[in-house]
This record gives sequence, C-alpha cells and structure tokens, in this order.
Amino acid sequence: MQRIVAAAIVAALAVSPVVAQPIEGKPTSAEILEATTADDWRALDPENTLYIETERGRIVVALSTGLAKNHVAWVKTLAREGFYDGLSFYRVIDGFVAQGGDPFLSHGERSAIADEFEDDVGKDFAFYRMKDKDGYARQVGFLDSLPVGYDKKHGRAWHLHCTGAIALGREDGRNTASTEFYVTLQPQRYLDRNLSVFGRVVAGMQHLQALRRVDPPEDPHDDLGERIVSIKVAADVPEADRSDLEILRSDSPAFDAYIEARRNRSDSFFYYRPDYIDVCQAPIPVRPVAN
Amino acid sequence: MQRIVAAAIVAALAVSPVVAQPIEGKPTSAEILEATTADDWRALDPENTLYIETERGRIVVALSTGLAKNHVAWVKTLAREGFYDGLSFYRVIDGFVAQGGDPFLSHGERSAIADEFEDDVGKDFAFYRMKDKDGYARQVGFLDSLPVGYDKKHGRAWHLHCTGAIALGREDGRNTASTEFYVTLQPQRYLDRNLSVFGRVVAGMQHLQALRRVDPPEDPHDDLGERIVSIKVAADVPEADRSDLEILRSDSPAFDAYIEARRNRSDSFFYYRPDYIDVCQAPIPVRPVAN
Repeated sequence: MQRIVAAAIVAALAVSPVVAQPIEGKPTSAEILEATTADDWRALDPENTLYIETERGRIVVALSTGLAKNHVAWVKTLAREGFYDGLSFYRVIDGFVAQGGDPFLSHGERSAIADEFEDDVGKDFAFYRMKDKDGYARQVGFLDSLPVGYDKKHGRAWHLHCTGAIALGREDGRNTASTEFYVTLQPQRYLDRNLSVFGRVVAGMQHLQALRRVDPPEDPHDDLGERIVSIKVAADVPEADRSDLEILRSDSPAFDAYIEARRNRSDSFFYYRPDYIDVCQAPIPVRPVAN
Repeated sequence: MQRIVAAAIVAALAVSPVVAQPIEGKPTSAEILEATTADDWRALDPENTLYIETERGRIVVALSTGLAKNHVAWVKTLAREGFYDGLSFYRVIDGFVAQGGDPFLSHGERSAIADEFEDDVGKDFAFYRMKDKDGYARQVGFLDSLPVGYDKKHGRAWHLHCTGAIALGREDGRNTASTEFYVTLQPQRYLDRNLSVFGRVVAGMQHLQALRRVDPPEDPHDDLGERIVSIKVAADVPEADRSDLEILRSDSPAFDAYIEARRNRSDSFFYYRPDYIDVCQAPIPVRPVAN
C-alpha cells in the first residue's frame, strides 16, 4: 500500500533481484478460480447447513457430509426444537474458542451423546489427500471441502480443529457431550480426536471473532456474554432469507490446482516459495451461488 | 459445560476407558506456570514495546530484540513523530490481516526501508529450538519468546507469521516497504521471508479481531475503517498508564517444560496425545508484572 520507492536503497541492494520472477506458465490461485466452471462448485445443501444468527450477523456452518453423523443429526434436532434460541456465547476466549449453549440447564436436562472423535472409515477412505506432511496426523486433506485427518493403518478419519471448526464440548470422560458447542477462533489441532467436530464455519467468521470476550460463568448471575438469536437448519428458513453459498469442490481438478498455487505462489510478489501448505492455512473458496 | 451423563450410553461404550489416564508424574502446563519463579519471566522493555491505541482498547506489541533491527528502529521513529496518530486500519480481511497506516500519503511522502526478510545470524544462532518438524522452515522455535525460523545451513533467521505478527507491507519489488504495517489475524506462514516481521502482539489481540472488516480503499473518499488513536513507544507513556506485562522467558527451563506439556497434555481430559505442537499453536504466557 506504499507507492514510494527510494531508488538509492534499491540500487544499493541490487544483489537481490529487484522484482521476483513469476513462475512462468503457472496460474495464480485467482486465475484458477476465474477459470472454474459450475461443476467445480457445490451449493451448500440447506438440509446440511446451520445458520447461527447473532446480533452481529449470520454465521453459516457447513455440516459434515460423511463423518460424525450422529452429532450432525443431534444438533439439527436441537436446532429444530429451537433449543439454542435466546441462549448465548458464554465462554469466548481470544485465540481459542467461542462456546455457546445452556450452561445452567435453563432449557432442562438433556441426555449425553456418544463421542464421535473419529469414524471407522476403513482403508479405502476417499478424500482429497494433500501431499504435505503434517505434525498431528498421518494424512490430511479435505472431505467435501472440510478439513480431515486420516489414519489409514487403523482406518480412522476425523475433522480437524482448523479455524471455524464446530464441535460439542464435553466433561472429563467419554460420552459426556450433550448440547454445549464451540467454534475454534484459531487452529487448535491438539483437540483433534479428543472432541467430536461435526462441521465448519464457511461464512460469518468475523462475527465470532468480534464477540465480546467472556470467561465461563460460575453461576447464572455472571456475565453470560452475547446472545445467540437462533440456530436454524437452513432448509427451515424461507428461501428468500437464505444465504445461498457454494464452495469449491475438493474433488474437482480446480481444487488441486488451487492448493498447488497456494503452496508455491507463482506471482512476482513472492521471493521465497515454501512448496508447502498447512492444511489449516488453505482458505477454501466460498462464494454466493451464481444465478 | 454439560453435567449430564447418560449412564446407558457410557456402559455401552465401555470398550474405551471412560476417563483417560493422566500421565503420571507429568505436570500440566498450568502446574508448570504455578511453579515458575520471577527469574522465569522477563518484563517487557518499555523501549522495545509499542502501544497501539484504538477506540476498542490497547494492543501491546513486543518488538523484536534481535532481528529486523532497522525496522524496529524505523517504526519507533515513526511512532515518536506521532506519524500513525489519527490514521486507521483501512484493510481488515477476516482470517488474514489488519493493515493500518497512511494509504493516501496524507502525512506526506516517506522514503522506503531496506527489507529485512531474514537476518544473517551465522551458524551458531542461539534460540529455543523446538524438536517439532515444520513444513515451512528447517528449524523453528523462539527468540526472546517470539517465534522464529532458522536455516542453519545458510545462517539465516526470521520471525514467523504466526497470529499477531507485525510487519511492514510492501509493493511488488524489493525494498519498497515504508510506513504501512499489518498484523496477522491467523497464521499466514506463506508470508515468511517475503516481508519483514519485526514484532508480535502480546496483549489486546481481541481488539484487532473485532475491527470492522474493510477492503482496501481505492481513494480517500472510500471507507477508511476504524481509527488508530495513536501508536506510541511504551517508554514515552507515563509510567502510571503503562501495561506492565511480563512474558515467560523462552530461555528458561520452565518454557521448555511448558512446551512439552502442550505437546502431550498430561491431564485426564485427553485421550489422544499427538507428541507434537505447531510453533504457531503454542500460546506464550504473558501476565501482569507481579509487584
């Protein structure tokens, strides 16, 4: 954003190229997106999408299509009951999570749900596998454009705690999750396989980042944080009020080209190209559905 | 945050231990912090600390102690001139950066500064080296508690684009940075060694996360975003108005124990322990100076 170049300084340092060399013939990620066709995108399925409405705006959650199925069904049931409407984000820790729900059981007791930390998917799990090594998982990549880890040896797959992961919180002990949910505000990969991630925020993340930070309350008179106006399944919202979004398909050739373009940026701005991308640092393209 | 456990579900899944086993005799990160002594902490040096004042609150930046020295000196000079006072965060992209400064040269033209993408530190660079592999750098760790990368073969070190990294923006081409700065809102490691990081936010990150998102303006009549009230060197602020903070010293034994406790959480909440931590996912302890 600065237009002034001191020619003397540039001349003195001419040992480095003054402008980096673009990678010839290799498209940028922007060029790859421009060249996509309708087949490279999938519209979010309204039956598999949540809208978290807050006073700051709408947060759109893509629910998992293939993992943690009981959690997906359970949270949709809660949303359809109106369970979360009028509750709040009562634990918002900067750089960690925004957690919401019903800490003092104002909506009554609910039973617990069995953990789905990881799913048994066998040894032929079909997903977009990244070539990049990862410190937390044997393999990483994307399943229907949501980040996943895979342990082929044991036939297990799970969604990753990248930014925007949504999961149910739990107590100390197995199968203690029930209604309380959190969304990660930064990557928190150490939580992988210790809690059940069932989807990812694909729009409106800035509203969660802006929530007033608040420590978990100890009793109902404490600060309960900002309000959850409602959580609804998108299919239950009148069509005119929906956020019609589509996401770049992780099983499309464009996705593979996009990831590669992010690994080694071809444009001339970049001098150092790491030939690597962290699975949580690949921003997955989402856009309004073209009409 | 949910207290209800359905006994039937737990019994049905008793094949997994109902409560994970803590690692016997291994302290948690909280226990390590409790056991620290004054020597394990360093107070931020007011001469090497910036306060970015916004209408939402103060952002505290620890400037680099050992790298990008010209950038540190240059930004302190600008702060002492009052250069940034009354300017704004005019480019705030969720999940990417908050960029501030003077896009339309309202404060006059300024010369450019030579890049410090990385420093020549030789083959015996002293820093806290993590054992964890990293996809972007040969070695990673901390220098005076700020994240760094190191290429021993070429004797180069640089600060990492973890969340809260502060750097100068630039044009396409070497040595074109001048006054415009950005802070990363998420890890953006692909920028490492392509821009000059000179410090890190150690408090107040939530104010940057909450900034109104705004695209870069094309002319001075566009939305210029939220105001930077001032940027000052802490030493220039009356003592009574300072944020007296201390940071866990990365050259202390406590730091090493803390990182290890984060790699493998010893408390019983965790079933899966990755024996790994990403350098950008280790939250570095900062607290008010004990008086």
